[in-house]
Amino acid sequence: MIDFEEAAKLLLSHDNIYILTHRSPDGDTIGCGFGLYYALTSLGKNAAVLCSDELPRRYNYLYGDYADKRFSPEYFVAVDIADTKLLGTELKKYADYIDLCIDHHQSNTHFAKKMLIEPDASAACEVLYKVLEKAEIPITKTIAECLYTGIVTDSGCFRYPATTAETHRIAAKLIDKGIPYAYINRQVFETKSKQRIAIESYAITHMEYYLDEKCAFVAVSNDLFLETGVADDDLEGLAPLTTELETVEVGILVKERDRGKFRVSMRSVKSTDVSAICAKFGGGGHYFAAGCMIEGTLADVRMRLLKEVASAMGIDLWVI
Amino acid sequence: MIDFEEAAKLLLSHDNIYILTHRSPDGDTIGCGFGLYYALTSLGKNAAVLCSDELPRRYNYLYGDYADKRFSPEYFVAVDIADTKLLGTELKKYADYIDLCIDHHQSNTHFAKKMLIEPDASAACEVLYKVLEKAEIPITKTIAECLYTGIVTDSGCFRYPATTAETHRIAAKLIDKGIPYAYINRQVFETKSKQRIAIESYAITHMEYYLDEKCAFVAVSNDLFLETGVADDDLEGLAPLTTELETVEVGILVKERDRGKFRVSMRSVKSTDVSAICAKFGGGGHYFAAGCMIEGTLADVRMRLLKEVASAMGIDLWVI
Repeated sequence: MIDFEEAAKLLLSHDNIYILTHRSPDGDTIGCGFGLYYALTSLGKNAAVLCSDELPRRYNYLYGDYADKRFSPEYFVAVDIADTKLLGTELKKYADYIDLCIDHHQSNTHFAKKMLIEPDASAACEVLYKVLEKAEIPITKTIAECLYTGIVTDSGCFRYPATTAETHRIAAKLIDKGIPYAYINRQVFETKSKQRIAIESYAITHMEYYLDEKCAFVAVSNDLFLETGVADDDLEGLAPLTTELETVEVGILVKERDRGKFRVSMRSVKSTDVSAICAKFGGGGHYFAAGCMIEGTLADVRMRLLKEVASAMGIDLWVI
Repeated sequence: MIDFEEAAKLLLSHDNIYILTHRSPDGDTIGCGFGLYYALTSLGKNAAVLCSDELPRRYNYLYGDYADKRFSPEYFVAVDIADTKLLGTELKKYADYIDLCIDHHQSNTHFAKKMLIEPDASAACEVLYKVLEKAEIPITKTIAECLYTGIVTDSGCFRYPATTAETHRIAAKLIDKGIPYAYINRQVFETKSKQRIAIESYAITHMEYYLDEKCAFVAVSNDLFLETGVADDDLEGLAPLTTELETVEVGILVKERDRGKFRVSMRSVKSTDVSAICAKFGGGGHYFAAGCMIEGTLADVRMRLLKEVASAMGIDLWVI
């Protein structure tokens, strides 16, 4: 484990840097990836941002001008990546070569040579902000747009418990750079395609309630993907819909990717540690937001998850 | 027009104060009303918070311990009230006696003897924060909860254009008081009753698109209220749903209160000034969020509104 200052020194003393972002990229990994990219290239360094999956269109204000020119890499930095499993198909070949990891996940598996993990930070972008400050790299408007995007993505626009007074102080400094924050928030949270609106509507009307309405569960099937033609980035951020009902304490969203393979997203809004539940299925994340992969039939996956939630809540199983 | 300091002096030099909040009370008028109440009573003053309508349950963490004991008022303060019309049935009798108005609406009609209007503030609570600072009244955790509630309500949790770097700096100071901000945000934005979820689902599936999908329109009828048994506070904050589709620039939500009487809420997410449109119907508000009342049939109301929106956008009417 290293501190902000050492991370700053490492970045300043290397060149030809590959920045690795996680699969199913969200605003934090993209914001942190491109924030670092613009910072490094502002110093005349060679850098590239890599991702196994296509970057969602909604974030194209961050990467619109980016030209992907590959070079022989000398240094690998992973951003917002808690586990090498999250590198995805394309990037997993770099798993053993990662020099520096900048992250904020408590569950990080410490896979890189040097680890900068700040579990109290709302976003990897908040960690990067402090590294850039230590490195005395000027935070331009472009970099501020990247960092603000990551912070609002992972803090749920300052709503989630991961937010701190410090998060707001950093946001104030980023807004001082003249970033179009209302536009960014609209891109991240409010701009929806017709397909996205349809799938939210589907999720809301198909929400199932268990455990005395303390647990909500909804499944989005492979067939629905095919039917509605939703793109993968139409599905980012659906999980918070599961905790909307006032009685709900734990929400579960299950997405069938390949037939019989389910990606589970869990949210907690009270006192249940969902990262502990997801860890039982080989996953991880944060106390209030975590995920895992489970294989099986939908009925089986639902029952296994509900059993673990019931047990974590201290509820008798027969209530299910 | 007075400044923060003069408002502070006026509050400090008076006693037996009635604090008036607006009808259909939202988080900002309630937060500002109770924030001021707790501040004044901490000085040993006599104060009461009045509202024409019942306070929504979702805000009961702010007023739960409040006992309404009336007394002979000597000073009247209106908070977050842009026009005496917004006093509502119960409080309109005080319209001519208001001594001080603390507000942030550009469209304020300047009805009080002394006016503190800060159109650049995200919320009336942001204005009150600065008044309390000038008055050197300590901001307790209880007061901080009130002010934070108003700020997140009116700034859309820091997403709307009214947010500034200053808004974040104040939020940081309020969070430093140890307020349960995640709980507050859940109360304001995420906790929904089954009826609320049903009505959102209704609004999403019944959304109509006009003007080349640049304008969204949805009506919630009187019959639907009766059918679903939704409470009035289940309807607060539905308007942002109208601007979710990526092509939409202006969203219109129309609620039938009494038969043939429609309360219109308009939202703009690009360059249309909706307060100017609402002013044509005797209403007002902000550039990006405004409202008015219109009487007529639904078809007629829809057409009159769309005509004004088309005209404001410079679109030929035949496109409707």
